[in-house]
Amino acid sequence: MGLLDYFKQESRSSASIAKERLQIVVSHERSRRHQPDYLPALQQDLMQVIAKYVNIDPDEVSVQLDHDDQRSVLELNICLPKD
Amino acid sequence: MGLLDYFKQESRSSASIAKERLQIVVSHERSRRHQPDYLPALQQDLMQVIAKYVNIDPDEVSVQLDHDDQRSVLELNICLPKD
Repeated sequence: MGLLDYFKQESRSSASIAKERLQIVVSHERSRRHQPDYLPALQQDLMQVIAKYVNIDPDEVSVQLDHDDQRSVLELNICLPKD
Repeated sequence: MGLLDYFKQESRSSASIAKERLQIVVSHERSRRHQPDYLPALQQDLMQVIAKYVNIDPDEVSVQLDHDDQRSVLELNICLPKD
């Protein structure tokens, strides 16, 4: 399954809601454990970059950070305003 | 299936290769067709932001852009140097 298929599958249930949405996922696969995790810091920088292209309402951003021994995954979900 | 599971699944076959890897996926779900697609332009900005945190060898970056009527998905796969 390709990533495009993954996102199609994810949004199928909400296809009737015609909202503009942006999702950013950063996955860092580490070769060594206990490396510093920079993903939380990266989050703010990513938001600033995205804001150059689209209007972002900070209240419409949800952030999730998951990690296990080998991997950190940062997920940003942004609902974009309609203008 | 959560996104963390997706990335675990994707990398299972290459788990024996202890490489440091970074994957960035940006998915833009549009409410209207024929909007300008800014993802290609965003790509360079994202690379510059990431380069603040980790060393990036431009030869070790693969980029894929997929799109259909409703969605554009930009995928950056970066192999990080071992330093």
